[in-house]
Amino acid sequence: MCKEIVEKVRNDHTSGASELSRLAAECFITFSSKKESKKESKLFEEALKLGRSLISAQPYMAPIFNLVNSILYAIEEKKDTFSDNQIRELVKSKAQDFIQNSLASLEKIGQYGETLVEEGSTVLTHSSSGSILAILKKAKVEGRNFKVIATESRPMLEGKILARFLGEEGIPTTLIVDAAVGAVIKQVDLILVGADSISETSFVNKVGTKYLALLAQENNMPLYVACERSKFISKVWRIKPKSDGDPEEVLTEKFKNVKAMNPYYEEVPLSFCRGIMTNEGMFMHSDVSNFIRQTRMSKKLTEELKSLRK
Amino acid sequence: MCKEIVEKVRNDHTSGASELSRLAAECFITFSSKKESKKESKLFEEALKLGRSLISAQPYMAPIFNLVNSILYAIEEKKDTFSDNQIRELVKSKAQDFIQNSLASLEKIGQYGETLVEEGSTVLTHSSSGSILAILKKAKVEGRNFKVIATESRPMLEGKILARFLGEEGIPTTLIVDAAVGAVIKQVDLILVGADSISETSFVNKVGTKYLALLAQENNMPLYVACERSKFISKVWRIKPKSDGDPEEVLTEKFKNVKAMNPYYEEVPLSFCRGIMTNEGMFMHSDVSNFIRQTRMSKKLTEELKSLRK
Repeated sequence: MCKEIVEKVRNDHTSGASELSRLAAECFITFSSKKESKKESKLFEEALKLGRSLISAQPYMAPIFNLVNSILYAIEEKKDTFSDNQIRELVKSKAQDFIQNSLASLEKIGQYGETLVEEGSTVLTHSSSGSILAILKKAKVEGRNFKVIATESRPMLEGKILARFLGEEGIPTTLIVDAAVGAVIKQVDLILVGADSISETSFVNKVGTKYLALLAQENNMPLYVACERSKFISKVWRIKPKSDGDPEEVLTEKFKNVKAMNPYYEEVPLSFCRGIMTNEGMFMHSDVSNFIRQTRMSKKLTEELKSLRK
Repeated sequence: MCKEIVEKVRNDHTSGASELSRLAAECFITFSSKKESKKESKLFEEALKLGRSLISAQPYMAPIFNLVNSILYAIEEKKDTFSDNQIRELVKSKAQDFIQNSLASLEKIGQYGETLVEEGSTVLTHSSSGSILAILKKAKVEGRNFKVIATESRPMLEGKILARFLGEEGIPTTLIVDAAVGAVIKQVDLILVGADSISETSFVNKVGTKYLALLAQENNMPLYVACERSKFISKVWRIKPKSDGDPEEVLTEKFKNVKAMNPYYEEVPLSFCRGIMTNEGMFMHSDVSNFIRQTRMSKKLTEELKSLRK
């Protein structure tokens, strides 16, 4: 049963980190409800094994890492005093809390973030982020009138889908090619982008985000990153995706001496953004490193990851 | 006969400025060979009329402007002392010189520019420029081994065609989406881009060029612009294209509240580039303004343009 969910997490290339981390939490709930009696010492080993396979199923997704770490840390703290059943209850409640937090997070990001969008302003965004959509929808619901300029976001054009969603919400949206952000920047008041992960001094997002960051800097324009708090992860533990996207998404023809390269993500220094809007409120970029440092790490997971990275 | 050529210049949306300016020069050769006798005073008026219609056929193409201006200036200088036939000869020889210069210019740009490409280096380019192709081809002919990273250049993907040309010349070329330049910049040694026009303090090129410029600045990486000398034009006389590209090149679907915008060109400060490589050799960006200032302008054309711009 758990194995099936792990495989589902591994083979899902369309859902976001948020959705898949909730699936991973479901996996821990299933794990905790197993009736077979086990030696207490084995229970932690098995949770660790499950966590490891979930992390390696989507090594790039910070929320899955953080879910696994928080559960293993909780077990480590209690395993000398708790009974087998108490440990199972602990795992279950941790996983359930995670799911509830995750489900509420977009609404909270929308609530905290909507005030960034001023009446009559034009917002530029790149690629497609659920957090950005939540902020813009909430600003619209609150009665704000504003425009959005969205990039199509090659190669998979997810920006076009975001534009359609925004239009359906009644937000006037203009779609442009990714290269055109510099040509429209003078019309923009605010830049909002999502993130795949946030580390001590940088965030990771779709390629092209750096262009918006450089333009924000050059034009002294506010750029905010919005994402769930569960995407904060130390650079030490962040695992880079092994491969780029399929080169055929860029070039299907066969030309002599020509190949395609299709990097999906890039790292952008946090110093380019005015703040990071999360479901726990706004973080200043200078605070992020402190918050990440305070994450309590599971000893066993730390050891395992260290050996994995050798 | 002349009218037909003017219409051909006006309706050609695929040839470059270089090719169309040679067609415009052919037009002046045809004009100069007209046998009908005319009052001397009328000849200049007719040349001016022809020049005006050629400029307005492709108002954005600096080489056409410069061709027209140089011919009108030459007539103005001589019209009080030259006979009707001498003026015709003058126009013809000016136009022929222009065509010869233009035809030789790519080869010269290649010769001057190829030394920029170092053995074992990786060159990044954006969109498609005949001048850049000339430089890279010449560097290859000279036996240099190097790689090129080329952007596809949405919406019309002319970068893909450039990549094919480069590959056919035996140059290993990697195609990327426009947004990915930031993700590959650390692999790059040299950035080369073309220009549609060069003015006192800025150049105009395909949208997305600004991203390369900002990355060059951030990474202290050499960026050179290469183009024909005939693309130098004062900001005062440069006419901006009235409309962007067809929005359907960006979005064909109809989404509620969503429109597309398709700007083709953007202005980039010359301060971002180390030099401007032309068929007359390399210009430092600080010299460009002096060279443009020294352009001798036709009085009559100046007056006409001033009134056009009111």
